[in-house]
Amino acid sequence: MVKTRRSKKSGLPPGTLVHIGEEKTDRVKITLIRYNEREVHEEEIEGLDHLEEPPPEGGESWVTWINLEGVHHPETIEKVGKYYGIHPLTLEDIVNTEQRPKIEEYDDYLFVVLKTFDSTEHPDEPIIDQISLVLKPNMVISFEERSDEICNIVKNRIRSGKGRVRKAGSDYLAYCLIDAVVDHYFNILEKLGEEIESLEEELIAKPDKMTLQRIHRMKRHMILFRRSVWPLREAVGSLLRGEFALTQKTTLVYLRDVYDHVIHVIDSIEIYREMLAGMIDIYLSSISNRMNEVMKVLTVIATIFMPLTFIAGLYGMNFKNMPELDWRWGYPAVLLLMATVVVYMLFYFRRKKWV
Amino acid sequence: MVKTRRSKKSGLPPGTLVHIGEEKTDRVKITLIRYNEREVHEEEIEGLDHLEEPPPEGGESWVTWINLEGVHHPETIEKVGKYYGIHPLTLEDIVNTEQRPKIEEYDDYLFVVLKTFDSTEHPDEPIIDQISLVLKPNMVISFEERSDEICNIVKNRIRSGKGRVRKAGSDYLAYCLIDAVVDHYFNILEKLGEEIESLEEELIAKPDKMTLQRIHRMKRHMILFRRSVWPLREAVGSLLRGEFALTQKTTLVYLRDVYDHVIHVIDSIEIYREMLAGMIDIYLSSISNRMNEVMKVLTVIATIFMPLTFIAGLYGMNFKNMPELDWRWGYPAVLLLMATVVVYMLFYFRRKKWV
Amino acid sequence: MVKTRRSKKSGLPPGTLVHIGEEKTDRVKITLIRYNEREVHEEEIEGLDHLEEPPPEGGESWVTWINLEGVHHPETIEKVGKYYGIHPLTLEDIVNTEQRPKIEEYDDYLFVVLKTFDSTEHPDEPIIDQISLVLKPNMVISFEERSDEICNIVKNRIRSGKGRVRKAGSDYLAYCLIDAVVDHYFNILEKLGEEIESLEEELIAKPDKMTLQRIHRMKRHMILFRRSVWPLREAVGSLLRGEFALTQKTTLVYLRDVYDHVIHVIDSIEIYREMLAGMIDIYLSSISNRMNEVMKVLTVIATIFMPLTFIAGLYGMNFKNMPELDWRWGYPAVLLLMATVVVYMLFYFRRKKWV
Amino acid sequence: MVKTRRSKKSGLPPGTLVHIGEEKTDRVKITLIRYNEREVHEEEIEGLDHLEEPPPEGGESWVTWINLEGVHHPETIEKVGKYYGIHPLTLEDIVNTEQRPKIEEYDDYLFVVLKTFDSTEHPDEPIIDQISLVLKPNMVISFEERSDEICNIVKNRIRSGKGRVRKAGSDYLAYCLIDAVVDHYFNILEKLGEEIESLEEELIAKPDKMTLQRIHRMKRHMILFRRSVWPLREAVGSLLRGEFALTQKTTLVYLRDVYDHVIHVIDSIEIYREMLAGMIDIYLSSISNRMNEVMKVLTVIATIFMPLTFIAGLYGMNFKNMPELDWRWGYPAVLLLMATVVVYMLFYFRRKKWV
Amino acid sequence: MVKTRRSKKSGLPPGTLVHIGEEKTDRVKITLIRYNEREVHEEEIEGLDHLEEPPPEGGESWVTWINLEGVHHPETIEKVGKYYGIHPLTLEDIVNTEQRPKIEEYDDYLFVVLKTFDSTEHPDEPIIDQISLVLKPNMVISFEERSDEICNIVKNRIRSGKGRVRKAGSDYLAYCLIDAVVDHYFNILEKLGEEIESLEEELIAKPDKMTLQRIHRMKRHMILFRRSVWPLREAVGSLLRGEFALTQKTTLVYLRDVYDHVIHVIDSIEIYREMLAGMIDIYLSSISNRMNEVMKVLTVIATIFMPLTFIAGLYGMNFKNMPELDWRWGYPAVLLLMATVVVYMLFYFRRKKWV
Repeated sequence: MVKTRRSKKSGLPPGTLVHIGEEKTDRVKITLIRYNEREVHEEEIEGLDHLEEPPPEGGESWVTWINLEGVHHPETIEKVGKYYGIHPLTLEDIVNTEQRPKIEEYDDYLFVVLKTFDSTEHPDEPIIDQISLVLKPNMVISFEERSDEICNIVKNRIRSGKGRVRKAGSDYLAYCLIDAVVDHYFNILEKLGEEIESLEEELIAKPDKMTLQRIHRMKRHMILFRRSVWPLREAVGSLLRGEFALTQKTTLVYLRDVYDHVIHVIDSIEIYREMLAGMIDIYLSSISNRMNEVMKVLTVIATIFMPLTFIAGLYGMNFKNMPELDWRWGYPAVLLLMATVVVYMLFYFRRKKWV
Repeated sequence: MVKTRRSKKSGLPPGTLVHIGEEKTDRVKITLIRYNEREVHEEEIEGLDHLEEPPPEGGESWVTWINLEGVHHPETIEKVGKYYGIHPLTLEDIVNTEQRPKIEEYDDYLFVVLKTFDSTEHPDEPIIDQISLVLKPNMVISFEERSDEICNIVKNRIRSGKGRVRKAGSDYLAYCLIDAVVDHYFNILEKLGEEIESLEEELIAKPDKMTLQRIHRMKRHMILFRRSVWPLREAVGSLLRGEFALTQKTTLVYLRDVYDHVIHVIDSIEIYREMLAGMIDIYLSSISNRMNEVMKVLTVIATIFMPLTFIAGLYGMNFKNMPELDWRWGYPAVLLLMATVVVYMLFYFRRKKWV
Repeated sequence: MVKTRRSKKSGLPPGTLVHIGEEKTDRVKITLIRYNEREVHEEEIEGLDHLEEPPPEGGESWVTWINLEGVHHPETIEKVGKYYGIHPLTLEDIVNTEQRPKIEEYDDYLFVVLKTFDSTEHPDEPIIDQISLVLKPNMVISFEERSDEICNIVKNRIRSGKGRVRKAGSDYLAYCLIDAVVDHYFNILEKLGEEIESLEEELIAKPDKMTLQRIHRMKRHMILFRRSVWPLREAVGSLLRGEFALTQKTTLVYLRDVYDHVIHVIDSIEIYREMLAGMIDIYLSSISNRMNEVMKVLTVIATIFMPLTFIAGLYGMNFKNMPELDWRWGYPAVLLLMATVVVYMLFYFRRKKWV
Repeated sequence: MVKTRRSKKSGLPPGTLVHIGEEKTDRVKITLIRYNEREVHEEEIEGLDHLEEPPPEGGESWVTWINLEGVHHPETIEKVGKYYGIHPLTLEDIVNTEQRPKIEEYDDYLFVVLKTFDSTEHPDEPIIDQISLVLKPNMVISFEERSDEICNIVKNRIRSGKGRVRKAGSDYLAYCLIDAVVDHYFNILEKLGEEIESLEEELIAKPDKMTLQRIHRMKRHMILFRRSVWPLREAVGSLLRGEFALTQKTTLVYLRDVYDHVIHVIDSIEIYREMLAGMIDIYLSSISNRMNEVMKVLTVIATIFMPLTFIAGLYGMNFKNMPELDWRWGYPAVLLLMATVVVYMLFYFRRKKWV
Repeated sequence: MVKTRRSKKSGLPPGTLVHIGEEKTDRVKITLIRYNEREVHEEEIEGLDHLEEPPPEGGESWVTWINLEGVHHPETIEKVGKYYGIHPLTLEDIVNTEQRPKIEEYDDYLFVVLKTFDSTEHPDEPIIDQISLVLKPNMVISFEERSDEICNIVKNRIRSGKGRVRKAGSDYLAYCLIDAVVDHYFNILEKLGEEIESLEEELIAKPDKMTLQRIHRMKRHMILFRRSVWPLREAVGSLLRGEFALTQKTTLVYLRDVYDHVIHVIDSIEIYREMLAGMIDIYLSSISNRMNEVMKVLTVIATIFMPLTFIAGLYGMNFKNMPELDWRWGYPAVLLLMATVVVYMLFYFRRKKWV
């Protein structure tokens, strides 16, 4: 949700590392992958003392990817940050998992914040994870809140050597991670689209009190999802305009592709939002329509039986001098009168299309 | 609809060709048209081995147009792409038929994505086809999801030699295709306009529960149609600003015309959307008005018969000592009283304009 | 209306002249006015062979104004266009009377499209005429759909020699025509304002079902009127920024005045639109209020007579053992009881302000 | 109101002076104030022949302020305009009091149009006056529709010599007049704020039919007030960006202050508008709530008395064979039954919180 | 609230110091803190004669921070202003506590206005305090309306020497104060978020008349809060773009962090506003739903008892010749008929899901 539990941070000097957000994993797992076009080395780093500098530029061009799962141990993050020369504010943004997606340039690295979105497990409180990337020449350091699919997809691609990733530099690796996040957005769009469609069917078939609340929950998902995606547009756009030095020209065409996808996602979110707004209209009019129907039933019943009851009451009066009461065919005549009234009324309502 | 079935693509490296979208034709049909001011050669290419390079620049200036119908065989598209030096990302966009309209510049060609829109066959699920163009010097390669009218119109114009097309270069051919798509938008606008008008008449004559749903379906068509047109504005605008090298100056004046038409279409869509929004207001107020009418009938009936029934009930009481009951004109007097009540009530309601 | 009957044009090569729109006059009438500070020559040109070139620049500086009434004869327009070197796309825009207002620069002339608006004759379908201008050095060619006031106003001014028009160049003549169109917008604003005011009075005095439809018709007029004016803002703005070579510096200050007026008109349209939106709110709440009133009448009647009828029914029961029935003052006591109930109820409703 | 009575101007050549707007004062009063740091001369100019040129630049630096009250005598305005070299279009804007606020640069002067706003006297038709300024080096000519407070405030400041005004140039005098107008906006904001608050209290305490109309009148005031202020933002902004040569650098910091105030006023107007929109929501829901209440009363009454009346009716039947009628405790038993029904119903409604 | 009590200022020359706003503290308390990396001096200045110039640039680099609590004594502010060369307009903005947040550059200092927000004590009238900063080289002068937390947080950080503040210049001190204000916004967001959540629960569990008013109060808080935050975005943005000379490059990265936080706050406010708008929809539909329920009860009761009462009335008629009355099983047969009617009706309503 949109809650921001930053109060425990209030008053501390900027750059102080305080983990904000849920603790989503137990220990911090650090994986190091080093690859070039021909080889891949992969190992899990147990202690922080085994962190390694990226190899010198000369000779074979290696790309080093250090992946951390878990950002809730400020000390670990701080140590990693110090080792690789990451600015304290960057570290603060990494452990504070309530950032907006963004791309920031620091003196010798690019810092990228990405958000994932998952509303399947807890429909009331979608899970929004943060993936942070530090992109240096020949090196990417990624921070995940917990082990998730995004990074695994890219790892597998490196292991198998499929696609361009092994042939390209660290900026292409960063692009792959961003692309994986954006691809994951399309999966979410599909799920949300299916939910909206089932909601739409429910709305037309048998809307009840819960329908509106479900529509509003979907609207809130849309708001939160959009919040995770929207700022990425500008961020990738600034990458695309070549504002940052670290991206090579050959990668730019791929970034344009990601940019396009981000716009596509945002577009679809807007369309879903318009559809949800329309569904609220339909829901409200369906309430009114049902009230109309209830009122019609009441009116038909009252309009038929009130005159009848009156006629019956009329001949229930106790006047001495009521000649009809003594007529032989008085009773049948009154019954006939009543039947006439009913038939006339039904005819009238039929013409008004009320029955 | 806005569904995005990209999940099967999730996790694959960028540039992998996976057809996304419906399969709309059986086989891929490739047509080659080569023309200059005096001659037109046209042939269907059976195997991909017959693909031909555009003739050298020198000598007679030929324009080559290769048209593919069907984009669901990634291998074919890949082969064509490799032969003509098309970037893998472009190919990915061609087979993935859920692109937004756009114009992108690559090193030696312009890539144009266009969308058609057709809501006549399936009102619930308008068909949106994608037409992709690759514009190179003296050459246009076009990709259609299935054989449709747009390209045929231009083919006929080339065959007959009418207009400027045979005298101009490949950029004018690309313009002709874009222009044909935009002309097709006007046809759609006309159809949508007629539907809206008939909806409007229905709304005023006899609105029912389905009316609102029909309005909302129209609204959704508008959203989807706008989505197909809107991005074209910026795309053609960037062409117009001369951002791309491949368009000649003489073609620019025609592009300005297309740009104008696109804006006209977008304008009309916005106006239709405003009209549909107004129609929802009218619909909702018509429900309220009808409820008002129902309530009036009920109130009139109740207000007339309740006093009457009470009077009848009064003289139905069994008190020993009720002198009126024994009066000779008691009964007629009561009937007269009742008539007076009815007349007064009717007069009252007439004044209130309820009857 | 917003209907676009362009389908007959679909598939034709660009630059083909097909008249789109209503035929509003029988024959095409061509008038030639040639003037300088001292003299005015005016004649009606019968055949197209009498078209004349503007006189050479040297010597006396004449301004030539050729005015065509009627644009539905493509051949005539084409002939005029060829004679004066007008681009086929311009001619297409002239005969297709469904253009947006715009100003376009061609190699040796400026092309201006203006729209008039008239909702007085046919409130359901306002008449929107198109006036096209081609501005060349020392020459203006104007195309009207039918004879209307705008051009006559300017003609009279030229004839009488009032104002600056005879002393200035062709750009000032074009300005005069634009200014006359914008002045005419103020007249329309006045009329629309009066209609809105009378609607407002109707809304407060005695709103009925037609009121909402009248409000919506006004809204549609506003949409259509805005469509005729809005693009003019940008068009005149671009003139004002001196983007076009054909306007002299002394004319710019007049264009700024027109620009100001256009903004004033757009502003007023927006205000009218907000007022109309507010009127819909008032209308809807007036329906609810009336329903409330109906319900109150029903409730008051039911609440008074139901207890009375019950009491009457009570003493209409046929139990053997009902001592009240035999009491001497039983009947008057019951009547008193009933009166008490009525008084109490009326008191209650009075307090609730229902009666 | 937004009415524009320009029709009497239609068809006249631009630059023709026709007074548009109400005539708000009898005669035109011209005051001349000439001051420098040490001296102030003030006189009323009786005839237009006494108009004086600003003294030559050399020597003592005097500032001349000519103030005209009343703009409905075109001849006077024209004479003044000709004397001081004011462009006919400027004069047209001065006598046509339906301008938007604006700042325009002419060859040798700046032209400023300001609007005042007063809704206290005529709540239905707020009075909007126009103050026009012509700023020349060492000279300001101001035109008011009638004598109002704005200019008097500044006159008094000049007379008393308080503040910077006597030490600075004519641009500072113009600034003082603009500042006085903006200060006057704050007074209006206060009044409108108080009205909104009293409306809000009325809305919560006892909303009636007039409340909505009062809210809408306030909304209209807001629209008109915003119209008077909004364009000033851009106008002052362009002054601030130093686009005009006539403002000295020391005055710029004061203009920034005015700019800030204008934004503050616009902000507050927007907030008021949002509050009014919210009040309409509350009003509409209060109608619904009241209807709910009416319906509850009706339902409670009907639900209690219908079963009772039925029971009474049951034992009013005339069947021969109805043993209950002959029972000794039949009547009390039925009364007990009725009491039970009532108690049960009341209990039910109490639980539903309807009574 | 949005009230602006500036009327007492109307008519005074610009630069006149008049305190506008509530008087929130008794006396003005002036604290001077002077620090460098190794030392901190702190003292309360009793009289204004003890004000001190910042020490000369040479030698040890000291930063001087003068903090004033209370801005309602214009004389004090004026004296301080004159001593440190602050422009009269700046002083006017300091004492007039109804400024928008802003950053303005003067010749030799930067002027920063910040707003705090507190809705906990007075939910109807949130308290909005103003903190003004004057940033000069090596010096910061801060003005608070009353002693609050923001400045104390920074004071404590200086005293303890934690973080970068003691090592950096006066621009970093200004940054710390801005950062403290923005951190305080996150606390407010949390509180508002909790209120919204509790409102949401109330809305779903048991909405009553007060719920809507509570939602609207929250909406107003959002409007006011946004007003305090929104302009800060542009202000910090202009700092960030390096438009001002006084900020060092090392501070810029911190300002980017603040900028990010401000955008985060604005984003959250927008999301809250959308949620509140959705809650109004839910509230209105809940009223309609409840009315629906009331109507259903009424209809069910009427529909069951009206036919019954009619049947009872029928056999209450006094016709001589009504054979049923004499039948032995007439009475039980009628009771059976009535039971059948009830069962049928209940079955009908059950199927319609009304009971």
